[in-house]
Parts: sequence; C-alpha cells; structure tokens
Amino acid sequence: MNYPLDKNLVDNVCTTFGLMDAHELGNATIRQMVGIIREIERQADCEYVHMELGNPSLPSEQIGVEAQIEALRNGCANKYPLITGIPELTKAASEFVRAFLGLNVPEECIVPTVGSMQGCYALDTLISQLRPDRDTILFLDPCFPVQKQQSRVIGLKVDSIDIGDYRGDSLRDALEKKLQKGNISAILYSNPNNPSWMCLTEYELRIIGQLANRYDTIVIEDVAYLNMDFRDPNRGKPYCAPFQPSVGRYTMNCVHLVSCSKIFSYAGERAAVIAVNPDLAHRHFPALTKRYNSDGQFMRTLVYQILYAISSGVSHSVQYAMAAMMKAACEGRINFVQNTRVYAERAHRIKQIMEKHHFHVVYDKDADNRPVGDGFFFTFTYRDWTGEQLLNKLIYYGVSAISLVSTGAKREGMRGCAASIRDDQFDALDERLALFDRDFAPASPQPL
Amino acid sequence: MNYPLDKNLVDNVCTTFGLMDAHELGNATIRQMVGIIREIERQADCEYVHMELGNPSLPSEQIGVEAQIEALRNGCANKYPLITGIPELTKAASEFVRAFLGLNVPEECIVPTVGSMQGCYALDTLISQLRPDRDTILFLDPCFPVQKQQSRVIGLKVDSIDIGDYRGDSLRDALEKKLQKGNISAILYSNPNNPSWMCLTEYELRIIGQLANRYDTIVIEDVAYLNMDFRDPNRGKPYCAPFQPSVGRYTMNCVHLVSCSKIFSYAGERAAVIAVNPDLAHRHFPALTKRYNSDGQFMRTLVYQILYAISSGVSHSVQYAMAAMMKAACEGRINFVQNTRVYAERAHRIKQIMEKHHFHVVYDKDADNRPVGDGFFFTFTYRDWTGEQLLNKLIYYGVSAISLVSTGAKREGMRGCAASIRDDQFDALDERLALFDRDFAPASPQPL
Repeated sequence: MNYPLDKNLVDNVCTTFGLMDAHELGNATIRQMVGIIREIERQADCEYVHMELGNPSLPSEQIGVEAQIEALRNGCANKYPLITGIPELTKAASEFVRAFLGLNVPEECIVPTVGSMQGCYALDTLISQLRPDRDTILFLDPCFPVQKQQSRVIGLKVDSIDIGDYRGDSLRDALEKKLQKGNISAILYSNPNNPSWMCLTEYELRIIGQLANRYDTIVIEDVAYLNMDFRDPNRGKPYCAPFQPSVGRYTMNCVHLVSCSKIFSYAGERAAVIAVNPDLAHRHFPALTKRYNSDGQFMRTLVYQILYAISSGVSHSVQYAMAAMMKAACEGRINFVQNTRVYAERAHRIKQIMEKHHFHVVYDKDADNRPVGDGFFFTFTYRDWTGEQLLNKLIYYGVSAISLVSTGAKREGMRGCAASIRDDQFDALDERLALFDRDFAPASPQPL
Repeated sequence: MNYPLDKNLVDNVCTTFGLMDAHELGNATIRQMVGIIREIERQADCEYVHMELGNPSLPSEQIGVEAQIEALRNGCANKYPLITGIPELTKAASEFVRAFLGLNVPEECIVPTVGSMQGCYALDTLISQLRPDRDTILFLDPCFPVQKQQSRVIGLKVDSIDIGDYRGDSLRDALEKKLQKGNISAILYSNPNNPSWMCLTEYELRIIGQLANRYDTIVIEDVAYLNMDFRDPNRGKPYCAPFQPSVGRYTMNCVHLVSCSKIFSYAGERAAVIAVNPDLAHRHFPALTKRYNSDGQFMRTLVYQILYAISSGVSHSVQYAMAAMMKAACEGRINFVQNTRVYAERAHRIKQIMEKHHFHVVYDKDADNRPVGDGFFFTFTYRDWTGEQLLNKLIYYGVSAISLVSTGAKREGMRGCAASIRDDQFDALDERLALFDRDFAPASPQPL
C-alpha cells in the first residue's frame, strides 16, 4: 500500500458517514471515526495504525470470563438482575474501593452501571435535577470528549478550565472564580487524565475537595485508569499506600466512577460501578421529592428512578464477572497495575518514533513541572500545526487518532491511544510518519 | 406463616425504602416494589406469590447461552463492540423482523440496545429533539409504567388516551383530537399491551398509521411480547402470515422495539434491538444538525450521538447471544410462541382462583368485544375497590402486584404478572385470597 491514500476515496467515505468532507473530521465522534477508518481500510485494502479508540487490547482477565460463563451456565440470563446490583458485586466493589482508593464506601452506596459511560450519563442527569439554579457542569479539560457529548445530548450547559494551565496552587483561584458564579452543579474530571495522562496530585485534589465543600458542588471523579500512574513503582498493592489519589479524602460531596474496561480489559462487556460518598448518598433534595414524588434521597433516586429508566440495570452475567475480578484484585490474585504497564512501554516507543519525525507531545508537563508519564493515552502534534490541520492530513497516511478539539483542550493537537498498536506495527508507524514528514517539512532555507 | 402479616413490620419496611408508609405503595416503582417485598420476606420469613415483576421465569433459550459463552471463550470481552451492532446481529435481526413482523427493515436501520428500556429511553430523547414545538409523547394507556417514568427523568410532557375506551373506529377521533394540537412528537404503545394484554388489531394499527402520516408523528411500537396473542393458534411460524400486527404496514414514520427478554427469556442480559423504518432512518432534521453539528440524520444521530453517549453500546457477548437466537427462530429451531404459551395457562388458572374469591379482570374486553386473552400480564381488582385500596391491603396477605395508577389506566385495579407463579403456589394463592375475602367481604344483609 502506498501512502498517502487516494484523496477521493477518503473524502467520499467521510461524506458517506454524514460529514461534509475530511475537514469535518474534528467534529466526528470517536465511534464515527472508528466507522470511517474501518470503511477506508475496507475500500483501500489497507491497515491503519489505530490510535483513535481506547480499546484495551490486552486479553480480558480470565477470572472474569470464567465467572461470567459460570453465571450463564447457572441460568442467570432469564432473571432481571437486582437494580441495586447483585450482593456479591456491591460487596466486592466496596472492598475494591477500600483496597485501591483507600476510601470507605459501604455496599449500599455502590451500584453497577453499563460501563462508566452510563454511570456518568446517569449522574449528569441526576445532578442537573438537584438544584434548579445549578445548570452547568464544570469540566477540567482536556476531557474525554464523550462526556461533553453527554451534556449536549441531555441539554446541560458546560464550562471548563484547561487544567494544563492551572497546576498546583493556581488551580484554587481558577476554580473559585468559576464556582463563585453559583451555577456549577458538578466538577467532572478523569484522573489519570484522558487524553493527556496528566495526573492530579493529592495536593490538587485537596484544593478541589475544599472548594467543593465551600460551594456545595458535587465532584464526579472518573478513575477509569485507576493507579495507572506508572511513574510510581509502588502503586497497586491492595490495602497499601500509596493509593490512587482521590478527592474522596477531602470532601463528602463526591462520587467515583470505577470502570472494569481498562483495569481488567473488560471494555467489551460494559462493566462499571458508581461509588457514592455515603454522606451524599443519604442526602435528600427537595427538587427530587417534587419531581419524583418520593423522599428525594440521592442514592435511591439514582438507582430506582434514573438507572432503572435508562436500562433496567446491568447485564446479569457481567455483574458476576465484575464481582470475581474485583475480589481477585483485593486478594492479590490479579495485579492489574502490573498487567497494564505494557501500555506505558508502547507509549514510550510511539513517542520516540514521533519525535524522530518532528512530532511532539503537547501536554508534556505534569504537576511540579515533572514530565508527563507514559500510559494509555498521550497528546501530540506535528511541528506547530493545529489539531485540525494534522487530522485532515494524517488520515491519508494510514495513522488514525482523534482531534483534541473535542476534548476542550486549549492546546492544539491530537489524542493518541498507545494500547492497540502491535509490535509488528512500530515499523509501519515509523515509515508512514517519515513519509508524512517528507511531504510536509517546511522547505529548508537555501544556503547563502 | 399466618396472614395477614404484622402491620408494623410491613409499614416499617415501606418507610425504610423511602415511602411515607404502605399507603404510598402506588407511587413505588416496580423495582422499589421488588426491593420492598424482598425485605418483607426476609424480615417475616415468608414467601410471597410474586406477581409484581415481569420476570420471564422460563429458562433462557440455550442457543443464546451457548453462543454467548462461545463469544466469551473467543475473547470478545476486551473489545468495545461496534456501536452499530456486530454484523451477525443486525443481519439476524433484519431477518427476524421480516420473519415474524412481516416487515422489511435493512440491517443498517437496526441497532442493539441494553434492553428495550434503553431503546425507548434513547428514542424518547432523540424524538424530543427533532422538532422544538413537539414536546409531548402520547401514550396509549394503560402502559408499562417505566416508560412514563422515562419521560419524567428526561423532562418530557406526556399526554394519553386510555385505549380501553377507544377500540376500533372510535380510536380515530380520539387520536386525531390529540394530534391536532400539534405538540405530539411520538405515539407510544406496547402490543400486546402491558399491563392489560389487550391486542391492537391490524385495523386499529392502520388508523394509527394513517394519522401518523397525516400529522407527521412518529410511532414507537414496543413488541416485547411479539406474537404472544395466544388466542390465535397460527402465530409464530417464520415468514408465514399471520404476522404480529404492526403499524409498520401503514406508515413509514415508525420504529419497533424488539426485546429478547420475554420471547427468548433473556431479560437478565438486557438484550434488544431498535428497528427503524428505513424512510425515517434516513430522514434529516435541521434541529439535529444544529444541536450536533452534523448532517442531522435520524439513524446516525440515534446511534453515534444518543446511544453512544448513554452506554457506549451493548455488551459484546450478549450481541452474539441475540444473533444466535434470532437466527435460530428464523430457521425454525426456536419456536418462541409455543415455548411461552405456558404463561397463558398460568394466567388462566390465576384468573379462575381470583374469580372464586370475588376478584375480577378489569380490562376484560378486547377489540370487537372479544374477551381479552390470557398471557404474560393481566389486570384485576377486588369487588369495586380502587387499585390503591387493594394494594395497601393485599400486601399484608403475601401476594404482590403493582397498582394500575402508574400505568395511567383510567380503570381502577392492579397489574399481575402470571409468569413467576410456580405450580406449587396456586394453592397458596387460593388460601391467601380466601383469607382476604373472609376479612373484607361486605357483611351479608340480615335475613328479614
């Protein structure tokens, strides 16, 4: 296959998928992007280096697979699962949160969701109904783009801070300026950060927690990449510090989204739980009482009104898988931090190849000016190009990633996922980026 | 165990679950009811005759279980499923719709959902965004209560017609009066009807279809109990008339919710598809273009914006189960109508016992004044009692069902599900209803 690919072929696929042309790719959802690339591969008979979708790529933890199969053999498929979650799961998840986040969240404050995607959708919906004057969600950008898409579907307002510009103490002023307006219902972030892999520190989380208390704002903490700050060699031992940094130590106004997709490579089955701080879980809101003609309790409304209405609960067999994997992790039979460390190695190699061809990491610094770590995701661009410029050209070279525009990043560039690249693809990446650089390097200044 | 149960025990459980007392049971969601009854059983060490939750109770179709296990063994759990559905599924579902509904819906107009609950939630969300002046969903009541709950969660207005009062030609005027107002975005019904088991006829569906055309309203047709009008002995042969009656023969403005929960007893795994009429699927709406910065196409918005945001698709292994069961049904290897006929037999026995103790069926007539059939659900009350009166008393007698209030029924009574009663429980039902009748029968007039 010769790169760049035929322009007409690529553009035609884009329009087939409802975009105006390849220039509109920045607006495509990740899944639209997946569909577009798949179709280009089919029509051009080529294979991309896929960095667009955050697929785990490691095999699923076998303990989960076996537990799910056993549950199916035992006949769970014909019975609606308890909407509150099967007791084995809520028990295991409560232990898991204690073992790896170092937090106490009792079983009755945990509920399974169809992936953290559903968890976040349900929380956005609920939190927007708690207090009529709080109509805006504050994102700590750059963010997982679908979380902003969720707000657009539901019809919520969003505001944001680019966390890259406000590390450490400067976060306090930036956040407080937003919270003072009185319209912020929730603060939403993922830690480690998708897409940039920056990691909020305990110090920064304390700032967030203190302000959540002062302004009575709820924090939605997405820990999809729990303990995957691989720079710290001591993470991931159950019930041992250092734990995943968490806002849960500094405020009771918080919920945690704990997904099995990445830590147990179980993304295909849509498996996650919401862990709600017990204080918030048991709080009553008059607006909920009015809307649902109930006692207006946060947790009960989340479970019996919202999650019930959205999907009637989570696949029964998947709940058994989650329970088994979380239990195994607590008992040291699954070391998910060690297992996923390969992503950091892949990211490291990709970044090396990129730098060779005049690409670079966009969000390159973490807190305290440390270099950002290697992990599941990274941000990049070519020379001084914008993300849109790069996306519109890179697609012809058999390399796929998504634009940072949809992540709300103030900085220009793209998000790459290091997980799905195979060992036999690093050479292809090297060659294609070399071609790209050959075609787009600025003309050298003529010697005098 | 002696019935009635201890009043304090029952009332205390109700308040623990966020109700004011047992009088508030009419407001409880079905799943809240399940939780309440479960807790009463635990505390009182008794077993109810459960008629509240529509659990299939038959074992799941083994073909589905085996396919799901094989998919898990093949390693599907670590990969996000295509948001559009795996090709095997959309192909099988397209065939299934042809074989049992007699309709042509191409593969690209079919998408899997986390049960039809998610299907309906997603459609409600999408349809309410198509045209800003259409803010109301018209229910043909009595309805599946959670579908109204969905509207409350999303924040949509609802209007309704009690279909029991408008059978045959009288439906036309009643519907048209509602549609003329111009605010109806969609007409929603289940056929056979949950809770009453009334069945809309082809004649009535033609009326609905014609009016949907005239007023450009979208019909959401929920066929969770596909072909389960057991009065007709010839239903359920693939590709052979008589098919499930469907509005899809009379309007292109329609979508069909096809669930595997009841027909294949697969409720636990949350397995369903939406089949969108191709004309509607390919239609573009300016309001969607504006909201999502896209071409505004109905189907693409449903899949890539709404369903993606709500849960990132449907459990990968479950999609293989669905595909296998639908394929088997088309090929005559699963006769789901014959398999589920046992529900009709159970309903028949329950109704006989009830009548003995002065209970009766509330929605007792179907179209053309035929007696309503026996099936998965039925409606009932005691003498001339309201549903609330009955619910508040029946709960002390170890028999559980839900109030018709939440179904929007104009008639008073309760919904019972015939599926979960075991053969060894008919005697218990008989005894408990006898006790109930002993305690509440009006005093006989004294002989002169």
